Amino acid sequence: MKTLRDIGENNLLRSLLPRLPQRADTPVGPGDDCAVVRLPGAADDWLLTTDPVIEHRHFLPDTPARRIGRKAIARAISDIAAMGGQPRWILINLVAPAGTPLARIRGLYAGMIAAARRWRLGILGGDTAEGAALELHITAIGCVPRGTAVLRSGARARDALYVTGRLGGAWRPGCRHHLLFEPRIDAGRFLARNDFATAMIDLSDGIATDLPRLLDASKRGALLDADAIPLSRAAQRTDHPLRHALCDGEDFELLFTISPSNLDRFKTAWKQQFPRLPATRIGTIVGSPKQRILQYPDGSIAPLQSSGYQHFQGME
Amino acid sequence: MKTLRDIGENNLLRSLLPRLPQRADTPVGPGDDCAVVRLPGAADDWLLTTDPVIEHRHFLPDTPARRIGRKAIARAISDIAAMGGQPRWILINLVAPAGTPLARIRGLYAGMIAAARRWRLGILGGDTAEGAALELHITAIGCVPRGTAVLRSGARARDALYVTGRLGGAWRPGCRHHLLFEPRIDAGRFLARNDFATAMIDLSDGIATDLPRLLDASKRGALLDADAIPLSRAAQRTDHPLRHALCDGEDFELLFTISPSNLDRFKTAWKQQFPRLPATRIGTIVGSPKQRILQYPDGSIAPLQSSGYQHFQGME
Repeated sequence: MKTLRDIGENNLLRSLLPRLPQRADTPVGPGDDCAVVRLPGAADDWLLTTDPVIEHRHFLPDTPARRIGRKAIARAISDIAAMGGQPRWILINLVAPAGTPLARIRGLYAGMIAAARRWRLGILGGDTAEGAALELHITAIGCVPRGTAVLRSGARARDALYVTGRLGGAWRPGCRHHLLFEPRIDAGRFLARNDFATAMIDLSDGIATDLPRLLDASKRGALLDADAIPLSRAAQRTDHPLRHALCDGEDFELLFTISPSNLDRFKTAWKQQFPRLPATRIGTIVGSPKQRILQYPDGSIAPLQSSGYQHFQGME
Repeated sequence: MKTLRDIGENNLLRSLLPRLPQRADTPVGPGDDCAVVRLPGAADDWLLTTDPVIEHRHFLPDTPARRIGRKAIARAISDIAAMGGQPRWILINLVAPAGTPLARIRGLYAGMIAAARRWRLGILGGDTAEGAALELHITAIGCVPRGTAVLRSGARARDALYVTGRLGGAWRPGCRHHLLFEPRIDAGRFLARNDFATAMIDLSDGIATDLPRLLDASKRGALLDADAIPLSRAAQRTDHPLRHALCDGEDFELLFTISPSNLDRFKTAWKQQFPRLPATRIGTIVGSPKQRILQYPDGSIAPLQSSGYQHFQGME
């Protein structure tokens, strides 16, 4: 009898997604960072996404509860940032064993309430239920001016490939980036509002996994400049900084593409708007979807290989 | 060290809900069947709700997977029906152990896809994650013409108290109502559209638990006519039909109130619109919130006592 372990999360999703029924008022269905839905005559499109945060998968029993709450909210609104939207509301499903200390639950909510205040979100409630492990399921709802959501599918040959911030080591010992990252809401809105980004995704699983997702959706390839990948301090302290920058995941930075005709305008405007947040060009989109190549300074090349975590199978 | 078991779900929610931050564009925050949010100038308000369906709590390991999927969707959209809204979209978080048979997962989705087709819902995706037990977390999104959502808080003294369908025994042996119930979408929309219902809630936990929720929100009481409560066949087959009708829960019928000035118009219109769905008057709203009384045909009375299931504590 076949189980989820035998096929893994990616194959499961590949077999399910095409069969899900869609409505005509849904410009973007499953498969992007958020779904986009639209009511006739409305000035704004709605962005919808939901994310689980589960003990032993996304945090450990000794992770401080406030930080788990913060992370749960920040992960969900990072998906809205990746479409260029403004997050507005949150729904929370809490699952917990009956023996969970009340102080831990209060800590979770303190973290979520502080995050909601910080990013001006309304918490609309949700539900609570008894279960075997501690879980938060966060649904985030945001808005974007009609037709301006940035999808994964818009990258074209010769577009420049950019990333915000520095990458790698988010959950290495001593690094708390996976708990304390900043969802790039203002950057995402800026990139959508000015028609800069042709495609965008947030780096939840690492470039090695998330760039192929953007490329698959765009039906394009990419040449990556290995030397240009911006390395976090945590990645720099490891034996293989580049591998950690490509594969660790949970950076929650934005990966996006800029048309060559907009490149100068983009560079000037970015520096003015975000003087303290680096946006680094790390490569170029190419026409052939099969070409996904890392170029090293010595001229050698290597194929970009996905090695992200996959639910039901662990590391590949 | 205090745990969730020590305080129970109701006390947990009572302590958390008032602290959740709210935005100005939120006509109804946490505490009703759905939250209601509004964008400036939009013709429709949006209804948002999320519901967990968890193995050993809401279904058993031998419950057919298709029926679990159907139930998960139907429960969530019943909350939208209870506000008088039209459900439109669904997001799904699936949690499952890696050893879950693939056939069971496919069955769950077959049930959800059939339910979505039946009620013309788009499934916008969601997420999947590995966890200790099988769970579905369903977020449902619906719409209602601006300002017409029916809240729990609108009941007034002398309003007639009504219920759709027949109650009790939904999960008694041999009864599959808890899996196969009809969310009362058309009835809910009818009651909202014609300004009939002054307050409404869906019966997920039984009248004994859900009526007090409506009365608390409305700051009113009620006199219930014990003899008028419509009994399901499953309830009639038990030793205590009335107790089962009041306390079993999972009926997912609508409990609503009608102003005396609308009563004749309502009765005529209902019969015309829903010739096969009974709407039964079971009592009257009174001004004093403390008066919550069951009246028996012999003239005796008893206080209405909540005895619903409570997460983290089991039965009270």
